[in-house]
Amino acid sequence: MAAMEFEHIAWLRGHTPDGDDVIVGPGDDTSVVRTAAGKHLVTTDMLLDGSCFLLAEAGAYRVGRKAMNVNLSDIAAMAGVPRWAVVSVGLPREAGAEVARELHRGLCDAARIFGVALIGGDTNSWDGRLAISVTLIGEAMGGEPVLRSGARVGDGIYVTGPLGGSLLGHHLDFAPKVRIAQELHRRGPLHAMIDISDGLAKDLHHICEESHVGAVLFADRIPVSDAAVEMASRDGQTPLQHALSDGEDFELVFTADPKVGARLMREIPGLHAIGTILESGYFLEVDGVRQILEPRGYEHAF
Amino acid sequence: MAAMEFEHIAWLRGHTPDGDDVIVGPGDDTSVVRTAAGKHLVTTDMLLDGSCFLLAEAGAYRVGRKAMNVNLSDIAAMAGVPRWAVVSVGLPREAGAEVARELHRGLCDAARIFGVALIGGDTNSWDGRLAISVTLIGEAMGGEPVLRSGARVGDGIYVTGPLGGSLLGHHLDFAPKVRIAQELHRRGPLHAMIDISDGLAKDLHHICEESHVGAVLFADRIPVSDAAVEMASRDGQTPLQHALSDGEDFELVFTADPKVGARLMREIPGLHAIGTILESGYFLEVDGVRQILEPRGYEHAF
Repeated sequence: MAAMEFEHIAWLRGHTPDGDDVIVGPGDDTSVVRTAAGKHLVTTDMLLDGSCFLLAEAGAYRVGRKAMNVNLSDIAAMAGVPRWAVVSVGLPREAGAEVARELHRGLCDAARIFGVALIGGDTNSWDGRLAISVTLIGEAMGGEPVLRSGARVGDGIYVTGPLGGSLLGHHLDFAPKVRIAQELHRRGPLHAMIDISDGLAKDLHHICEESHVGAVLFADRIPVSDAAVEMASRDGQTPLQHALSDGEDFELVFTADPKVGARLMREIPGLHAIGTILESGYFLEVDGVRQILEPRGYEHAF
Repeated sequence: MAAMEFEHIAWLRGHTPDGDDVIVGPGDDTSVVRTAAGKHLVTTDMLLDGSCFLLAEAGAYRVGRKAMNVNLSDIAAMAGVPRWAVVSVGLPREAGAEVARELHRGLCDAARIFGVALIGGDTNSWDGRLAISVTLIGEAMGGEPVLRSGARVGDGIYVTGPLGGSLLGHHLDFAPKVRIAQELHRRGPLHAMIDISDGLAKDLHHICEESHVGAVLFADRIPVSDAAVEMASRDGQTPLQHALSDGEDFELVFTADPKVGARLMREIPGLHAIGTILESGYFLEVDGVRQILEPRGYEHAF
């Protein structure tokens, strides 16, 4: 979770491994390595007090839970099966054992839901604010993960739930879409998928970039959350603007053949068809008129 | 690397995984998970500016290299084969791109030596000081890792190099003992092994605790580094005290049948036989007299 991404995550990608390992990416939040036993997924996310959360407001339990859940969401984005997690923590020296216990309880509660084993970690204290990093290792369901790079012209674009306004609480309390991702992948085929961490407009654009395609979203089909409406009433933006650009919804956006998408919408409740993959361009269609959609995401405030 | 371990790392251990995974530990720095393809090793370490290093003095290159090397040392302690690494970083907002590039260069240089692929990461900036966490995944060489828990009464105790005074620079510039660990394991059998991160007296005691045995070290056989002598000349402690209690030497201590140990000492240069595993007790023998050895390690200053 970036307060502001200093450089693109790709500065840590793309190194040639030896042997028969395959690194899929570089755009995906999760890396894929091929071993004798199949494809393993590896993802890591660091949360920092004052950037990704406010410890004093959120409390350590919700921070621990979020630290695990953002990684679970990255595995969900590939329709993977999360298995093992390790955690490293820099605790403020004055924090006390209660903060450590509550962090741990949050981490474990989030992990347990998906059968993830917390297998190790490194606990430190320092003069700084709370820093917590989780690395999650999973397996590709059915042998193949869903990547960002598979979207095809003509695909429908779908989202798993309402968007926007996560700052009002959802960014701490969301449930990662691990199970629905697996269910979609099983019933698919899905062509491309991503979780919404930086905002719909920005994250869907990652799919377009990686897949070398364009997209159009239909304004009247984008599901807007109550929180987006509430945020809009406070700041003068529209609920739709919040739904398009707010980060940390952690819903999934995926693309699939429209016939497959229609079937999935009948079979799985809560899906919304919100657009179409084009050859090029990036648009929002409002009342039948296409306007350029800026792939701007939310700059995480915390 | 702990400035001060807030609670024992075990607060993150011992959770029952589902399925056929086996978690070995809880004492080891590295966790072992069994998959269809064999045993995988997973380790994580966080380094914090002001606790584990001083960025302004060390420079980002050496910090990046150390962050990778401490994890490589954890894999070496099990005689494992390191394979894949992910890195998460909290960069001080004012640090600039040069710090990120130098960190990256240090990480990559350390990884490349052992064929480790840097497969992913999460880069953030924040108002705090530099925090960096590396997770390293490896494989067990020959199918079985060397643990802390296998020491047997009558074993010899061996160390791979001179000890003490790492604060003078070695703690930043050490080379993790990955290759010698593999060579020892191949030629062994080794019964137990650990890397010296908290100091010989403390880390050997971990082997004793996990193996339910005691030990005696012979004062005149412990190899003392030049840096330990230098440190002693400054602070009035003896060189031996530094060799026993200074942290971050990152040499390996292992136990083996004395006949095996004698053979290994002939075959591999640089090994020192420093003691014997007992049924119980923890001693330092000086001039033929056994005194109680306190399992006190160094409290990392940085």
